[in-house]
Amino acid sequence: MYNKKMYNLGASRSVIRELFEYGNMLKSQIGEDKVFDFTLGNPSVPTPSDVNECIKRLVDTDLSIHAYTSAPGNLSTRKAIADYLSTTHGVEVDPTLMYMTTGAAAALTITLNAIVESPQDEILAIAPFFPEYRVFSEGAGAKFGYVEMDEEGYQIDFDKLEAMLTPNTRAVIINSPNNPSGIVYSEDTLIKLSSILTRYSEQYSHPIILIADEPYREVIFGDVVVPYPMKYYKDTVVCYSYSKSLCLPGERIGYIAVSPSLTEAQSLYLCICGAGRSLGYVCASSLFQKVIESTVGLHSDNSVYQQNRDILIRELSSLGLKCANPDGAFYLLVKVPDGDSIEFAGKAKQLGLLIVPADSFGAKGYVRIATCVSTDMVRRSIPYFHQLMEMYR
Amino acid sequence: MYNKKMYNLGASRSVIRELFEYGNMLKSQIGEDKVFDFTLGNPSVPTPSDVNECIKRLVDTDLSIHAYTSAPGNLSTRKAIADYLSTTHGVEVDPTLMYMTTGAAAALTITLNAIVESPQDEILAIAPFFPEYRVFSEGAGAKFGYVEMDEEGYQIDFDKLEAMLTPNTRAVIINSPNNPSGIVYSEDTLIKLSSILTRYSEQYSHPIILIADEPYREVIFGDVVVPYPMKYYKDTVVCYSYSKSLCLPGERIGYIAVSPSLTEAQSLYLCICGAGRSLGYVCASSLFQKVIESTVGLHSDNSVYQQNRDILIRELSSLGLKCANPDGAFYLLVKVPDGDSIEFAGKAKQLGLLIVPADSFGAKGYVRIATCVSTDMVRRSIPYFHQLMEMYR
Repeated sequence: MYNKKMYNLGASRSVIRELFEYGNMLKSQIGEDKVFDFTLGNPSVPTPSDVNECIKRLVDTDLSIHAYTSAPGNLSTRKAIADYLSTTHGVEVDPTLMYMTTGAAAALTITLNAIVESPQDEILAIAPFFPEYRVFSEGAGAKFGYVEMDEEGYQIDFDKLEAMLTPNTRAVIINSPNNPSGIVYSEDTLIKLSSILTRYSEQYSHPIILIADEPYREVIFGDVVVPYPMKYYKDTVVCYSYSKSLCLPGERIGYIAVSPSLTEAQSLYLCICGAGRSLGYVCASSLFQKVIESTVGLHSDNSVYQQNRDILIRELSSLGLKCANPDGAFYLLVKVPDGDSIEFAGKAKQLGLLIVPADSFGAKGYVRIATCVSTDMVRRSIPYFHQLMEMYR
Repeated sequence: MYNKKMYNLGASRSVIRELFEYGNMLKSQIGEDKVFDFTLGNPSVPTPSDVNECIKRLVDTDLSIHAYTSAPGNLSTRKAIADYLSTTHGVEVDPTLMYMTTGAAAALTITLNAIVESPQDEILAIAPFFPEYRVFSEGAGAKFGYVEMDEEGYQIDFDKLEAMLTPNTRAVIINSPNNPSGIVYSEDTLIKLSSILTRYSEQYSHPIILIADEPYREVIFGDVVVPYPMKYYKDTVVCYSYSKSLCLPGERIGYIAVSPSLTEAQSLYLCICGAGRSLGYVCASSLFQKVIESTVGLHSDNSVYQQNRDILIRELSSLGLKCANPDGAFYLLVKVPDGDSIEFAGKAKQLGLLIVPADSFGAKGYVRIATCVSTDMVRRSIPYFHQLMEMYR
């Protein structure tokens, strides 16, 4: 009766959501302390108090705080972010090529709609990848494909990437630090990626855009450096969200930054403005634009994620489980013993351990464990992981 | 190089924005007091202080205020709104058929993407209409058309509507109180509209959805009643925004409400959930969802818009100008003397009067005057309207 594609998208409950809701039901049945919910990527650390103080101050003092901003966002906000990025990463970021968005999801859908022209166009992700990339790419009218996982280092398998590139490839999406592996792409990876994309862009006579989805950029452990893709590849568009770095996932505030060196950058920027209009994104929240402008450079304390990672990696390794050792984000990607992640997650569920099969992330035979939980819960969950592995003896 | 349609949308500056920016330039040249900017629909009255107090209280007391909500929004928020609507309008509104959105623009794009299936599908608006309806309809992959204006009462010319309906018509968009006429559709209009849409829905064997875009519902003067479309037509979807009723245009918070009596309502609702996902709308701002929940039923004071309307109508009428007499919203739609609105607005501009040609609103030969300005500016502008009309003697 109505749009079938949208119906299927709306009717197919996400595995993550389903498990999360099962967990809530289970908690009410057997008690909160018996359920170990590792499903959702909802930051567990509090929003920095400076952010909340800033909200209150702006509401008290700025008479136009709730007024429309220009469609791409306040220029002053974009300038503050561009200055921060330029200083931090040593690369020119142009505020007039930035567009404030309602989170990273909007940044991605706007960018994809700006790029995709024909139903033959292809968007590639690198496994493991956030499953909504498929939804966003197909929603923009393109075909979606992905490069299979590099199971050794969780970087990029370049042979497989080259095999996937075709004259229809319009963009490659990367996500570092990665959801679900937590891996950070090395400088070497970005240099090689740039070299390949440059070569194929020349061969195909059109730029293959690198879309860098970076909501976890600031969620890193120790002195890890996350190389800035714009420095390595000229045709880069950065899609960012403050959901994780400031623990504001519900406020939907982020941006698109088109590299000034991108081929016909101004033209792509106008396409982005047009796509924003067409999708119904006019201005991102005026209050949160101003909050970002006032707190630029501020990040939440990530030490709890690191602590959880350390405990879980130590324990899971001692149980013989292999997992990527993340330098950032708040997930662990764990290879299950016999390759059947659905069964593994099913057995875990019986023990109250809620973890997500990662097949839809392009990681068949893996599960994702979200570490943005309390360390107390992590500690209490360990005996149940032992019980789970007993089932595989 | 990139998407041509999006490029054209992004490159075509809106007439309104262009005039607004010209006005800012002019103010810096000849002085603020010599420029009378009637271009933008940015509410001039302040956000109710209860809203700002509520924001501060929530930020201080609700630890999960910035967390993800479920994709369609907090059920408690939807329940509070549904209760308010049911009580106010005497019609059942179902919270599980509501979807919280990032403003009315998102409500419209999500709804249109949920409905439109084929490129043959047609969406109809009733002139005069908000020009972005065309952008949103075409963005959802449909053809856009409109029913020409009823120049007598600014209601609906039903003969023209019937002539425009075809088997491809999927939805009709109405907007009451109307931007740009300020007119409220009467109960009689809604009854006739319902009867025609019911008849053609039966004839074409599919429901023609009535999309009621209602951001101005609470911006009304005196004891005017705005009939609630769901009461009159079963296949109704209401798209709402708090931009105007709470003076929060920059915060992008609104909702979609699918009538429980709509044909396969649950199916359309799932399409809406899917379209929300596909377009990158996951949850509307969590803070503003809670603000709405806490302040439901609160509206700004509209008396200044009414005062401005009264002064302008009196003065413009005395100058022989014909305009719709609005019962709501904050615009006047004025017929220009010789039918050339571009020339009229151009002449006005020379006098510092910034008003918008309404041709793109489907009102050829009319201009739109936004009355959401200070009454002082309105009073000071009157002599210039006199000068303008001198040019037409």
